[in-house]
Amino acid sequence: MADAKPAVSFIGLGAMGFGMATHLVKQGYTVTGFDVWAPTLERFKAAGGLIAASPAEAVADKQFCVCMVATPQQAQSVLIDGPDAAITAFPQGTVVLLSSTVPCEYVQSLQKQLESLGRSDILLVDSPVSGGVARAADGTLSIMAGMSDAALEKARPLLAELADPKKLYIVEGGIGAGSNMKMVHQVLAAVQILAASESLGFADQLGLDLAKAQSAVLASDAWNWMFEHRTPRMLTEYKPIASAINIIMKDTSIITAEGRRSGFPTLLTSTAEQVYFSGIARGFGPDDDSSLIRLYTEGKGKIGPVKGLASSEEEKLALVVDLLKGITLCAAAEALAFAKAVGLDLEQVFELCINAAGGSRLLEKSGPEIIKAFKEGTVENGWSTTEGGLSLKEISDKLQAAVEEAQRLKAPLFLGTQALSVIKLALGSGGDGLAAGAVVKVWGTF
Amino acid sequence: MADAKPAVSFIGLGAMGFGMATHLVKQGYTVTGFDVWAPTLERFKAAGGLIAASPAEAVADKQFCVCMVATPQQAQSVLIDGPDAAITAFPQGTVVLLSSTVPCEYVQSLQKQLESLGRSDILLVDSPVSGGVARAADGTLSIMAGMSDAALEKARPLLAELADPKKLYIVEGGIGAGSNMKMVHQVLAAVQILAASESLGFADQLGLDLAKAQSAVLASDAWNWMFEHRTPRMLTEYKPIASAINIIMKDTSIITAEGRRSGFPTLLTSTAEQVYFSGIARGFGPDDDSSLIRLYTEGKGKIGPVKGLASSEEEKLALVVDLLKGITLCAAAEALAFAKAVGLDLEQVFELCINAAGGSRLLEKSGPEIIKAFKEGTVENGWSTTEGGLSLKEISDKLQAAVEEAQRLKAPLFLGTQALSVIKLALGSGGDGLAAGAVVKVWGTF
Repeated sequence: MADAKPAVSFIGLGAMGFGMATHLVKQGYTVTGFDVWAPTLERFKAAGGLIAASPAEAVADKQFCVCMVATPQQAQSVLIDGPDAAITAFPQGTVVLLSSTVPCEYVQSLQKQLESLGRSDILLVDSPVSGGVARAADGTLSIMAGMSDAALEKARPLLAELADPKKLYIVEGGIGAGSNMKMVHQVLAAVQILAASESLGFADQLGLDLAKAQSAVLASDAWNWMFEHRTPRMLTEYKPIASAINIIMKDTSIITAEGRRSGFPTLLTSTAEQVYFSGIARGFGPDDDSSLIRLYTEGKGKIGPVKGLASSEEEKLALVVDLLKGITLCAAAEALAFAKAVGLDLEQVFELCINAAGGSRLLEKSGPEIIKAFKEGTVENGWSTTEGGLSLKEISDKLQAAVEEAQRLKAPLFLGTQALSVIKLALGSGGDGLAAGAVVKVWGTF
Repeated sequence: MADAKPAVSFIGLGAMGFGMATHLVKQGYTVTGFDVWAPTLERFKAAGGLIAASPAEAVADKQFCVCMVATPQQAQSVLIDGPDAAITAFPQGTVVLLSSTVPCEYVQSLQKQLESLGRSDILLVDSPVSGGVARAADGTLSIMAGMSDAALEKARPLLAELADPKKLYIVEGGIGAGSNMKMVHQVLAAVQILAASESLGFADQLGLDLAKAQSAVLASDAWNWMFEHRTPRMLTEYKPIASAINIIMKDTSIITAEGRRSGFPTLLTSTAEQVYFSGIARGFGPDDDSSLIRLYTEGKGKIGPVKGLASSEEEKLALVVDLLKGITLCAAAEALAFAKAVGLDLEQVFELCINAAGGSRLLEKSGPEIIKAFKEGTVENGWSTTEGGLSLKEISDKLQAAVEEAQRLKAPLFLGTQALSVIKLALGSGGDGLAAGAVVKVWGTF
């Protein structure tokens, strides 16, 4: 029923924004779109949307605005200080959903700018999303939203329209908390997107059939959502381009910048970021992020005689799985420790992440013991392995075997090597009896 | 006086070995050389040496043998189990100097092999060297030698012939201790060789004149021997080839392998190793190691609009200096902590390293406080800054400014980012009053 639904303006009709906006159109909303790229506007018009020539024109007379541009610089321009910015035309009490992935710091500064511009009436919602283009178009995104109670009351129906009902997370902490939640989720994304390339690149260096290596990982504790969704494109020459290296690079830089701002060492994410920078320096930025496997395989057969120790296919597959287990364990620990450091509810983080693109078997298995240790204040001790639980020493030994084999092959394992160093820091000079989650000790004081 | 000097066999006449062997010839020794590469033998003959067709022929009837091959595999072959291996012809009581850079583990296994082959009479000397080709040919190398007292008594005159009198280090601990000392020195070499490329590559990304950046570093606390000796070749298209990437890559792998074996996390060295692997995957292995700067500059001007914050030349130069200070501080801490973990005398390590290719201003400044903390068992606490001393927080803040600028430029800083993470781990959630050396806390339990 179109007449029961409010008019909405939608700024930023890129891949995600276009999907979200057209979904709203299908649900009967009158949606006025704006984008700087004219062909997108034409496409949106063809899909039943109205179009505007500026942000101000788009938002005029609408009680709701969704902003889904790519960067905080763009958000600042279209909302506040660019040509015909939305701020000049927002009706009193407009609800503004900022769904771009931005630093917590930016969305908090946006709130302050609205106040200092005398527009405290605007109800800002800090509501980044996750889930990819298909779920955007289906209205089944994961949304993590922080805002005032007043804003929540008005924004909830629109958020519910865009999100899977089970994946709409209202994050305690107001403006900034949604972006922090997204940032923590992206720790897993940033590490695991690269880990997909690193592990399958290692498989290639070992001489394994990639499809077999892929199956072995999917059936193992090394399973993670990113691996499952990225590796098929490694077998089809990185096509179609579903998510560019430039995109994950941008999110990764948000994480490491916030880590520096809050004094939290993002050991794995920072390692991934340097590899992303290396990739874009090679001109790979616009390519699908699955194509990072090229950075791991290019030396194969070109660097003189090298010889690994592993001989059977079974042994080699185990090395690939063990590499990825070590990395995903450390990613889970880094994400949860960072969530703790920025004051998020760890159980909500856990639930969101395991059901989203950051999900991994190791997060599922070791997340609960890490959360318990933070809650009970036992991060420094109390890490004895439980019946049937994973042993940190065993994960370390197996990851080490993979790192050693890569060294014999002179193949880089940026994340695997870093994960091993982090695990060794946690093990200290002993550590035989520690549970896997004890790796979080490294970040225990933050 | 030639007739007063013993006959010596010399196996392995590469760049270093050739210099050492011809120096002995000049000093009046009768030296019989062996190498697998015939042109080298001809050259050695022209320089006054005798030549042999096999290791066995070379060592027959000589009371001294120097082995200066490139790898433990080669040493094993020429000494023990290759065709016409030396072991078949060593006279009773031969003194064998193994001067190749090998893992401690290998030289210890060699000693055991000699024993199990019934050749306990052979006096093995674990005597790796440092100093480069020119000092090899001058007889002024740094030598770090571990051996039995009996071997020392016989070997000392020959060691003294090859070494600078002030740079002959007798390392306590017998066979393996010399190689451990060399390994610890190479932590500094492995990190600082790459850091020279990283810091001058960053200078290039900042748009600085490289010669100016070089001068600024040399006049600052970021000074280190490798920077001084590598960066001139960055200005002359990496020519002449003085030391190949393949060589430092090999030494780096010895360090990280021994780190894994002894459970010590080589956080900086492992990071460097992955970059070396990336370089050789590109086909750069035989190139001079100064050419690694290419990995840091290739994206410049090709990755779309990027803009840093630093505007004045002075600001930019400071960022380069601060980057390198952070890295060299962490390298010094990693080297000393590793030396502690493998049981070396820290004061001897310090003296050797500051006078060799591993030397750096930060090691000079912060080494003594780190050594004191290890001696007094105060690594976990007792790190208040001394009058005129360096503050860890200040180094961290300045390094962070460099890392942030690189992020704006989308330029990788593998070592700088890792150094910042390590320093943040040491600072923990506070750390304002800590002295620079406190970064070693990260490795405090190993």
